[in-house]
Amino acid sequence: MAASFQKKYDELLARYKDITVLRTAGEILQWDMETKMPAKGLELRSEQLSLVDLIEHRMVTDKKIGALLDAIEKDRAFDSLDDEKRRNVHILRKSYDESSMLPEKLVAEIAKQQILAVGAWKKAKAAKDYSMFRDDLAKNIELKKKAAAILMEVKGTKTPYDALLDIYEPGMTADRVSRVFGSMRTGLIKLLKKVDEGDAPDQSFLSRKVPVDSQRKISALAMDFLGYQTSGPDAWGRLDETEHPFSNGYYTDVRVTTHYYENNFKSSLFSVLHECGHALYEGGLPLEWMYQPIGSAASFGIHESQSRFVENMVGRSPEFLAYMLPKLKKVTGKALADVDLDAFVKAVNVAERSKIRIEADEVTYGLHIIIRFELERDILADKVTVDELPQAWNEKYSKYLGVEIENDSEGVMQDTHWAGASFGYFPSYALGNIYGGMFLEKMERDLPEWRSSVQEGDFSPVRSWLRENVHSRGNLYDPADLVKVVTGKGLNIKPFLGYLERKVDLVY
Amino acid sequence: MAASFQKKYDELLARYKDITVLRTAGEILQWDMETKMPAKGLELRSEQLSLVDLIEHRMVTDKKIGALLDAIEKDRAFDSLDDEKRRNVHILRKSYDESSMLPEKLVAEIAKQQILAVGAWKKAKAAKDYSMFRDDLAKNIELKKKAAAILMEVKGTKTPYDALLDIYEPGMTADRVSRVFGSMRTGLIKLLKKVDEGDAPDQSFLSRKVPVDSQRKISALAMDFLGYQTSGPDAWGRLDETEHPFSNGYYTDVRVTTHYYENNFKSSLFSVLHECGHALYEGGLPLEWMYQPIGSAASFGIHESQSRFVENMVGRSPEFLAYMLPKLKKVTGKALADVDLDAFVKAVNVAERSKIRIEADEVTYGLHIIIRFELERDILADKVTVDELPQAWNEKYSKYLGVEIENDSEGVMQDTHWAGASFGYFPSYALGNIYGGMFLEKMERDLPEWRSSVQEGDFSPVRSWLRENVHSRGNLYDPADLVKVVTGKGLNIKPFLGYLERKVDLVY
Repeated sequence: MAASFQKKYDELLARYKDITVLRTAGEILQWDMETKMPAKGLELRSEQLSLVDLIEHRMVTDKKIGALLDAIEKDRAFDSLDDEKRRNVHILRKSYDESSMLPEKLVAEIAKQQILAVGAWKKAKAAKDYSMFRDDLAKNIELKKKAAAILMEVKGTKTPYDALLDIYEPGMTADRVSRVFGSMRTGLIKLLKKVDEGDAPDQSFLSRKVPVDSQRKISALAMDFLGYQTSGPDAWGRLDETEHPFSNGYYTDVRVTTHYYENNFKSSLFSVLHECGHALYEGGLPLEWMYQPIGSAASFGIHESQSRFVENMVGRSPEFLAYMLPKLKKVTGKALADVDLDAFVKAVNVAERSKIRIEADEVTYGLHIIIRFELERDILADKVTVDELPQAWNEKYSKYLGVEIENDSEGVMQDTHWAGASFGYFPSYALGNIYGGMFLEKMERDLPEWRSSVQEGDFSPVRSWLRENVHSRGNLYDPADLVKVVTGKGLNIKPFLGYLERKVDLVY
Repeated sequence: MAASFQKKYDELLARYKDITVLRTAGEILQWDMETKMPAKGLELRSEQLSLVDLIEHRMVTDKKIGALLDAIEKDRAFDSLDDEKRRNVHILRKSYDESSMLPEKLVAEIAKQQILAVGAWKKAKAAKDYSMFRDDLAKNIELKKKAAAILMEVKGTKTPYDALLDIYEPGMTADRVSRVFGSMRTGLIKLLKKVDEGDAPDQSFLSRKVPVDSQRKISALAMDFLGYQTSGPDAWGRLDETEHPFSNGYYTDVRVTTHYYENNFKSSLFSVLHECGHALYEGGLPLEWMYQPIGSAASFGIHESQSRFVENMVGRSPEFLAYMLPKLKKVTGKALADVDLDAFVKAVNVAERSKIRIEADEVTYGLHIIIRFELERDILADKVTVDELPQAWNEKYSKYLGVEIENDSEGVMQDTHWAGASFGYFPSYALGNIYGGMFLEKMERDLPEWRSSVQEGDFSPVRSWLRENVHSRGNLYDPADLVKVVTGKGLNIKPFLGYLERKVDLVY
């Protein structure tokens, strides 16, 4: 590589490093706000977060990045770049074009409107009154349509909605999602019928009282099992408590949170497993790619595949539960003394028709997402209006999930995403399940002994497999390509449906 | 005020606001590093802190600030500015000139060298070998002399050392410090003789074992007493644990830390009081000045006056101890059951000749500082060389404190300040005592009943007095001027010496 070309490439990467370092600093401020900040500090914190955002935005859209990209892409040496460097340039080109083509005024307007809309949504949800939210939601949609129209041009997508989807799942399109979600819908509805025909397992012991201190010990057991280190000189994570569990961080400092309910110890156990699945991904990215574009997660959906893999495919497996149950009994004393493994496995794998997405199980979860995907796709295409939305929501819940929504707070207003103007985000959740199903199928072939290892308390073979196959590939591929590289197959729902079917057969 | 002038002033202040918001964000990162960060996150954190520093430095030295200052100062309207706005401009002018006159290269060199020197200092201190530190210290001094020579020009101070002193105590000079420290030295040495002649009180019960959990309860009692709120919707602070206690924050989010030793409960009690004294100052600044230059502490010395006022003048007073002792007994069970108030008051007010500054009591502390001040003043004036320093140190300790230093680790290498190239900082500690003595004298006149209030557990009259007289004046005056405004008197040592004398009479 010519020295002058190398210099330009290095300068481009140095700028990306600064952007990343600042972004991760902002994440610490965010984490602190959720976990440690004294209440009165909120206003100052908003100022800090906005300023960090603004500085980051200026760094990302700095015209010098555009000039460096132009010079690099025009250079003869560009053609002989290796895959990693070429991907770095590609990711930076995409993010530069997207960020610099959106007018600053529009970005600021959306940011402001979204705060107003979240405020209105909270009040409307509490009052179960969609009319209090309707105008702000309409304004959100209008602004997002403007942004999507611009992004569609920049990205060359077929529809505005595709341009939004691409933010969360690079390269994914509504057509493709529609196809795979279509098969998923049919499969899940069929599975739900099977569930209806079986006997519902006893879940009552899951609501026995387990003191928060004992639940903290259970969290420690789960983190230990996964190899997520939160103390000593090798610590790269920590566990704190927040109302809504989340994870954030980068490489060597990736943090998770959970919540504890005395009458629902299962909730914290599986949320810790879920968030640690995210953390293992961030912490498992190749160290030599730190501060490079390829040294990041491939997509929101791939991230979600990792959290659900750990939470569900490993965490709700009979083998993990066989390993964990004796330990749970030890920690909880009398509370679970009479619970046998079979009952435990069934109870944490129950499938139930439900109204609320975040309380949904593995079988129904996809249906909740499909409803949202179909609606937001149609909203962006002007096929559903804001006024028709609640009714359309309720009809789909009745049709797909067989539940009757009684008010809009348990209906169209249950999630914060649309209030936050995050259209295009929902599909990633279900895509994560689909990717995860495909990864599991491949892992079963590569590592047939994984279940017995887990049963013996040894997660390291699974962790190594995930690291080698998924984590170590960082952002080298768009998500569907990554899945293809890992499994050799195109995106398809069969592995996930097969996995669920085996589970339903086990429980019902 | 003309609209165009107002606009310039507003833009200048908006820039200061951004700088402050970013600086306080950096302080959260610093706090997190000391209290919460997983060990592996250190390198990423250094990157984040350096970047935030760099961005802040660019914002502070932005030529547009210089242009705005020029335009404002030249404008006719400048002459009719009120005191607050004029002071804002003055503080910004000073910080702009200082930061922009120092060559970036020199600033970076000092930052780098200081890290090396701290590294060398740690090793040399552990090995009790000054020769391992000597070269890095010499380099520190050389670089700081360069910086001081430039700052001397910018600030128009008489000597380079004055230019450094002015960083921590604006407007203070070595001549002035020498005068007041001279009287202090005489006074303290005389007091120490008095101490020598008395009987040393029993302190043995202070090292009785008090479990960390009980000490945490003691901290909560102290914070409660002071009105430092760490929970609920009105919380503006928090208490965490670090090896070295510190406080940081701004207005609505000011945090303190402490350490717990099972065999020294006194240590955490007084460090909590000390750090909360700092926090009450930051939290007591006028809210309407938030994000303005005047909305900050007047100096390091004034800050230290507030922490020591709370720790010593209030915290070691017989009245506070009378209030606290029954509560301590309740929390600690048998440990302090047989301790009576008189013995407790005497034990926490013992004065002893000592070698180590951070373990020194109120009587000897000033002498430790005087030694450091005289030496750094002489180093900067080329009157003492790096090679003569250890010997000069030991001689002064023998002469002023009557102790014989046995090795340089308990001698010239005991503190981190010179390794960190912070020449000019030490005097602030003792100036804080002097300011505090003057404040106390004035408060005794304004609020003769303060002692009985404290004894009843009511700190609010003292807090209001401090707020009204010191906190609410923010950075409206240079420290000596602030003292004059508050007390009506010029800087003098008598009130502090009188306070100490009464204490010595009480204990010995």
